[in-house]
Amino acid sequence: MNQADPLGWWQRPGLEYIDGRLHFAEHDVTRLAKRFGTPSYVYSAARIKANLRRVHGALESAGMSQHTLCYAMKANRFAPLLTMLKLSGLCGIDACSPQEVVHAVSCGFRPEDISFTAGSLSERDVTLLASYDGLSMDCDSLFAIERWGQHRPGSSIGIRINPAVGIGRGDNEKLLYAGDKTSKFGVYREQFNDALALARKYNLRVTKIHFHTGCGYLTEQLPLLDKVLSASQWFIDTAETIERVNIGGGLGVPHVQTDGHLDLNAWATLIAKHYQHQNLHIEVEPGDYIVKDAGLLLLGKTYLETKRQTLFLGTDAGFNICPEPAYYQLPFQPVPLQWNGGSLQAHHVTGNINEALDLWAEDAMLPDMQDQAFLALINAGAYSASMASNHCMRGDFNQFIIL
Amino acid sequence: MNQADPLGWWQRPGLEYIDGRLHFAEHDVTRLAKRFGTPSYVYSAARIKANLRRVHGALESAGMSQHTLCYAMKANRFAPLLTMLKLSGLCGIDACSPQEVVHAVSCGFRPEDISFTAGSLSERDVTLLASYDGLSMDCDSLFAIERWGQHRPGSSIGIRINPAVGIGRGDNEKLLYAGDKTSKFGVYREQFNDALALARKYNLRVTKIHFHTGCGYLTEQLPLLDKVLSASQWFIDTAETIERVNIGGGLGVPHVQTDGHLDLNAWATLIAKHYQHQNLHIEVEPGDYIVKDAGLLLLGKTYLETKRQTLFLGTDAGFNICPEPAYYQLPFQPVPLQWNGGSLQAHHVTGNINEALDLWAEDAMLPDMQDQAFLALINAGAYSASMASNHCMRGDFNQFIIL
Repeated sequence: MNQADPLGWWQRPGLEYIDGRLHFAEHDVTRLAKRFGTPSYVYSAARIKANLRRVHGALESAGMSQHTLCYAMKANRFAPLLTMLKLSGLCGIDACSPQEVVHAVSCGFRPEDISFTAGSLSERDVTLLASYDGLSMDCDSLFAIERWGQHRPGSSIGIRINPAVGIGRGDNEKLLYAGDKTSKFGVYREQFNDALALARKYNLRVTKIHFHTGCGYLTEQLPLLDKVLSASQWFIDTAETIERVNIGGGLGVPHVQTDGHLDLNAWATLIAKHYQHQNLHIEVEPGDYIVKDAGLLLLGKTYLETKRQTLFLGTDAGFNICPEPAYYQLPFQPVPLQWNGGSLQAHHVTGNINEALDLWAEDAMLPDMQDQAFLALINAGAYSASMASNHCMRGDFNQFIIL
Repeated sequence: MNQADPLGWWQRPGLEYIDGRLHFAEHDVTRLAKRFGTPSYVYSAARIKANLRRVHGALESAGMSQHTLCYAMKANRFAPLLTMLKLSGLCGIDACSPQEVVHAVSCGFRPEDISFTAGSLSERDVTLLASYDGLSMDCDSLFAIERWGQHRPGSSIGIRINPAVGIGRGDNEKLLYAGDKTSKFGVYREQFNDALALARKYNLRVTKIHFHTGCGYLTEQLPLLDKVLSASQWFIDTAETIERVNIGGGLGVPHVQTDGHLDLNAWATLIAKHYQHQNLHIEVEPGDYIVKDAGLLLLGKTYLETKRQTLFLGTDAGFNICPEPAYYQLPFQPVPLQWNGGSLQAHHVTGNINEALDLWAEDAMLPDMQDQAFLALINAGAYSASMASNHCMRGDFNQFIIL
């Protein structure tokens, strides 16, 4: 990562300028944009698998050989991507709704591959989920334990706990899942013994605890992860029957040049420090980390115009097909498809929705875009297409996977 | 509006408790919830028409007989609702994408009924729009004037201007369309003479100016509207050929008890003060004001559980089918379907999405919900169903109109 380079800092093998033309997954992106049209998402299977292998490798190196990765499919449920993942053998699935379970199975996963964690399940939800033999169910409340116990007495379950310690991405409250403020997620210490009693009532064996550590965390947040993992020990000790610990996802990817990155080895070492000596099987549920930097959103340029003193570059899609910047205030990096290292100028990059929050980037440094018909948003592989809406009836886009 | 009543302050004829049961559009809402299932949106045609008539009445009373209401269909494009509106004869359409034009026409509107205003149009967009003879086109940039001039030389156009003065809802930056900060919207004074010259180049007759005054404003913001309308005069004088002024939408509806309301007569008087003596035809583009309080979202209760000391009430739908609270931090009011005036307790009302921002309301005052199977969110008629996504594959819901 070249911190001195305001445009190309994100370059890496598989996403880089070659002879002044952006290449992604060994394709010239300009050719992809012309072929696929815009707006289009393009995903790299090679990058997705490399990301999974990197997480596996870090855990292996730290001595955590007993582990499973459950890809958080809510990050990106594009069917060809899911089938590719199943065939890769590198991960199972983290699902958070009955329809996600149905979809994962429709793409080739078995119920045994799926770890299910969600809250606020209706009776209809529970009935459907209980029909999937082999599904690993994490109950997030006393209510959920009771309902699952009624449907599947005698089964093994996980309990989603709330360690009351959380990791945010900086100060972003929207990404804080567990902290001082009481949230809807999981069972707190105050109610955990009641939860265990309820499990016994239905002869449920509590073999797993699950917790969500945070969202988008980087190396600088690892001391907080340490605290979260420490806080989990009380639940493990209290339950006495825990065989698996699911530490959720939350592994972060840098969005802009000033973001740091995540030291995966330091992360894995921390996990080993807490759990290796206890002979526990570790589950991790990465979503962002697996697919975010494996996706580009290709946009067509609509106009280039100075309003007052500000240079605007318009594009042919808006926040509704890629809502992460608008929902979570996470900035996206727009990049030109052609760049020869020439001088850069600040652009406000906008979408085509008639709303103030429809702004891809302020003061993005780009070369002269007069002769360029397209641009790309990098890091668009997660929580983008999967959260798209048809707001203003601007919901059309294509998706492609490069295998 | 009863300020002393933390639960029932929003009651009005057509949305009120009768014998302890919530009624909406002359229906017992519990019966609707049982019949329609949850989640379901229910819209009242009577309330929609009453809202339109109230705006017409205020403008008439203020002496602005030359006016047109163009309903901002992006607020709610449910097809039966659009057809009902066309048959009512009370309004035209404000459209902001080519597909919205197609949809409005598919529901019975004529191109002549439609005022189109949007930015960042692609060549494909402009080609499609230019095929709708009679459509009223507001160009929001020099680029847009040039493109429209190439397709429809010699036609009449509007120019969306940016008065560089805006009205926000309180301090909500996400709803600020025009202000000190240069935005993507419209043509500023600095470029307006260039815009007029470009129009002349293509023999376009500039007969309308359009500006978006703000979003969700209430009486207390009317002094700002006064400034916006004053700022429009320079553009009217400079263009010399203006026959119509479109002042956008932005009329607000109170969301919570502490919100004020909008004095529609004061609003209309302000418009008359600026434009009546100039013999200008006024267009208004209300969206929220017409449909927001004409819609309920019916939810099923999934659970009621205390976590630490906080009482949570879970529901069977999440922010993805009704994103306004999450996108714009606009609070929604949950209301019980049965209430006899008994004591109330604070509830955190949550959805079923595995995300921290999926929280309908904090500390909503509700009666004991143990025996109630449903609840409703009021003011859910705008920017809700129309912005829904299938995030987490939790995107299913029904919609019904009561004619």
